[in-house]
Amino acid sequence: MSQANRTAPGGSPERLGAMQAARLLARREITAEQLTRACLDRIQAREPIIKAWTCVQADAAIERARQLDRGPIQGLLHGLTLGVKDLFDTADLPTTYGSPIYRGHRPKSDAASVALCRQAGAVILGKTVSTEFATFQPGPTRNPVNPDHTPGGSSSGSAAAVADYMSHLAFGTQTAGSIVRPAAFCGIVGYKPSFNHVTRAGVKSLSESLDTVGALARSVEDVALLVAALTHDRRLLDLDWQGTARIGLCRTPWWDAADPDAQAALESARIALSRAGATVSDASLPGSFAGLVDIQQEIMAFEAFQALSHERLTAAEQISPSLTALLQRGESITFQRHQENLANAELARRDMDMVFNGYDLLLTPGASGEAPRFEASTGDPLFCRSWTLLGLPCVQLPVTTGATGLPVGVQLVGRYAADPALLRIARWAEGRLAA
Amino acid sequence: MSQANRTAPGGSPERLGAMQAARLLARREITAEQLTRACLDRIQAREPIIKAWTCVQADAAIERARQLDRGPIQGLLHGLTLGVKDLFDTADLPTTYGSPIYRGHRPKSDAASVALCRQAGAVILGKTVSTEFATFQPGPTRNPVNPDHTPGGSSSGSAAAVADYMSHLAFGTQTAGSIVRPAAFCGIVGYKPSFNHVTRAGVKSLSESLDTVGALARSVEDVALLVAALTHDRRLLDLDWQGTARIGLCRTPWWDAADPDAQAALESARIALSRAGATVSDASLPGSFAGLVDIQQEIMAFEAFQALSHERLTAAEQISPSLTALLQRGESITFQRHQENLANAELARRDMDMVFNGYDLLLTPGASGEAPRFEASTGDPLFCRSWTLLGLPCVQLPVTTGATGLPVGVQLVGRYAADPALLRIARWAEGRLAA
Repeated sequence: MSQANRTAPGGSPERLGAMQAARLLARREITAEQLTRACLDRIQAREPIIKAWTCVQADAAIERARQLDRGPIQGLLHGLTLGVKDLFDTADLPTTYGSPIYRGHRPKSDAASVALCRQAGAVILGKTVSTEFATFQPGPTRNPVNPDHTPGGSSSGSAAAVADYMSHLAFGTQTAGSIVRPAAFCGIVGYKPSFNHVTRAGVKSLSESLDTVGALARSVEDVALLVAALTHDRRLLDLDWQGTARIGLCRTPWWDAADPDAQAALESARIALSRAGATVSDASLPGSFAGLVDIQQEIMAFEAFQALSHERLTAAEQISPSLTALLQRGESITFQRHQENLANAELARRDMDMVFNGYDLLLTPGASGEAPRFEASTGDPLFCRSWTLLGLPCVQLPVTTGATGLPVGVQLVGRYAADPALLRIARWAEGRLAA
Repeated sequence: MSQANRTAPGGSPERLGAMQAARLLARREITAEQLTRACLDRIQAREPIIKAWTCVQADAAIERARQLDRGPIQGLLHGLTLGVKDLFDTADLPTTYGSPIYRGHRPKSDAASVALCRQAGAVILGKTVSTEFATFQPGPTRNPVNPDHTPGGSSSGSAAAVADYMSHLAFGTQTAGSIVRPAAFCGIVGYKPSFNHVTRAGVKSLSESLDTVGALARSVEDVALLVAALTHDRRLLDLDWQGTARIGLCRTPWWDAADPDAQAALESARIALSRAGATVSDASLPGSFAGLVDIQQEIMAFEAFQALSHERLTAAEQISPSLTALLQRGESITFQRHQENLANAELARRDMDMVFNGYDLLLTPGASGEAPRFEASTGDPLFCRSWTLLGLPCVQLPVTTGATGLPVGVQLVGRYAADPALLRIARWAEGRLAA
């Protein structure tokens, strides 16, 4: 059974959904302090195993919650707990970007997205583990469903913290598959908004053409809530929807790389959503689609080589072998080649926009199966790379469990900038996919 | 006579063009130390009047130059002096972003573009004055041609330093008109590359859809050299060109806002380039063009409101009235409106691409005339806003002087991502526009 399906057993405050908790807070039926203490207790109990956090500010969080309890409702996130991926600058907490180069680093300012959440009333519990500069070298975080496995990356700590009821909400970022994949592996909901929807100011840059700030939580309404607080897009707050969803089933050119669990989850979702009234048909993708994974990899490598220039010039010995290899690949790509890649991506975006004339969303795998074992890797972003490159909004939903008992989900992909429509149908689907 | 036309009188090292100096350095006919000392002497003599710098690191620059002189040619910028706009993070120099909020701030790292220049062998002299967060509240910098006037903004110090022979090269950034306008006012060359060509990692974000890193220098080959070092685009190093330039004359819908000096400069350029063999004809612009200035202003305001969230929440009293007004405008724009603006900008980009089927470049004003008096303002970016929004590469060239004896130039605008072609023709034009 997925994490999403066990949000409120016993009504423990840390297990409430964020939106649920917000309603209780608005009615003064629960306090921010209660929510915060429940999450901190959970962290104390579970953190030795899960290792989701680089730092936790228990006293400051409780003080902040008390302040909020004394005043009027401050904003959309009033009193809700939030984990901040350690790729985001924070003025009151160390910020390492997942790299030993930045051990003990304390930025002067908060990332703009962090400030927006503070303004909206969030209680920041601490910083969550990121892989090295949001690439592939893992941190210590374990999968809360089974600590022998990876939580995925790069938003490892955020996904694990939310899945394990340590926080109601958490920030993620995605450059290849760093929101959708850890959400899938941990059995929660991940939402990568359309490209250029959420400010990246103060978030460590990896690839400017790809980096996207998004949300991890345990339900669609909760991920939408966090992004609504960031964009001030009120449409994300009303996800009620009735209608007949037109769903394009997209096995992708990489279908053979999906293991039986991932294939079964997609099939199961197809059946459940058809039964619930959606029209589901095989999506026909433009010919340019199959090449997008290579293009995404080259753009990411080229831009990471540029973005991490200071680090590779001043602290190369503290960069992991896997990231060093990525940067070397980036260095080998000419600017002309990079421009061709960007131009081809732009053409593919226009092609893909036509596809959405026939569908409200695409239903497709978000990961190749269950979370790999911890020692193996943080998993493969193969099933996310093309969608990230296209800049399309993506939502990962938990569906089932695989052979090892770990969560397996599906990914819903919407038309560019049609995030409200995607989230409305995703919320509808979420109710139909629940076991 | 424009600054660009007095690059080598007496052969003083600080007056050499960057490319010229690079050739002499490669042949060991001059040393990096000589170049650096000449610029530092110039700074010492002129800085009390011009106030182009927030800080100068004389000793470190000389030490760096000596190190370079002892070794092999390190890269494209070997031994050339560079001024870094104070919007770029630097690990060895304070970084204020033009705001009292960041007085004495010392970032942990260099901006990626700064690191790339170090790698290419540049000698960083210091930080140059930026307006407040690259908006409109001026710093102390004066126009070197006439200190009673503004050098323009936001790259005020960079333009003044280069125009006054204090540095061979300097960084600029443009969100509205912050490279082209100060270059025009100071009589030098400014180059805003195509959007998303130069890494912005470590540059204070103002508006993610608009912010562009570029170059200020005293010739086209010199601005191209700096950007070549940043992008590794070797095509920018060979600007030899022969052919018949097809030039679209673009008076813009704001022609009446150009004063007689700016109008005369455009006319003078038209005649000079026609005589030199170019075909010049009136460009017909898409109907969407006239609305782009409003769209640019709204996108900039919305995104600045987001990007400066930390500052407006923690230090509102240290934000100038003019920037406060900009942020308030941003706050009033709904996310839906912002998305419509972004979508309309994208459509205009496609329309504009068609225009370039008929022209190699557009010839258009870059500013409304001479630099205003210092007390008045840093000038109006009106003639730059639409091109920045479209993401097109722009080059400002000096042409003449106006009624007050201050420089007046023209702007050349190229097709998106066709920077090498724009720069080749700009270099050709530069020789024809020189008095």
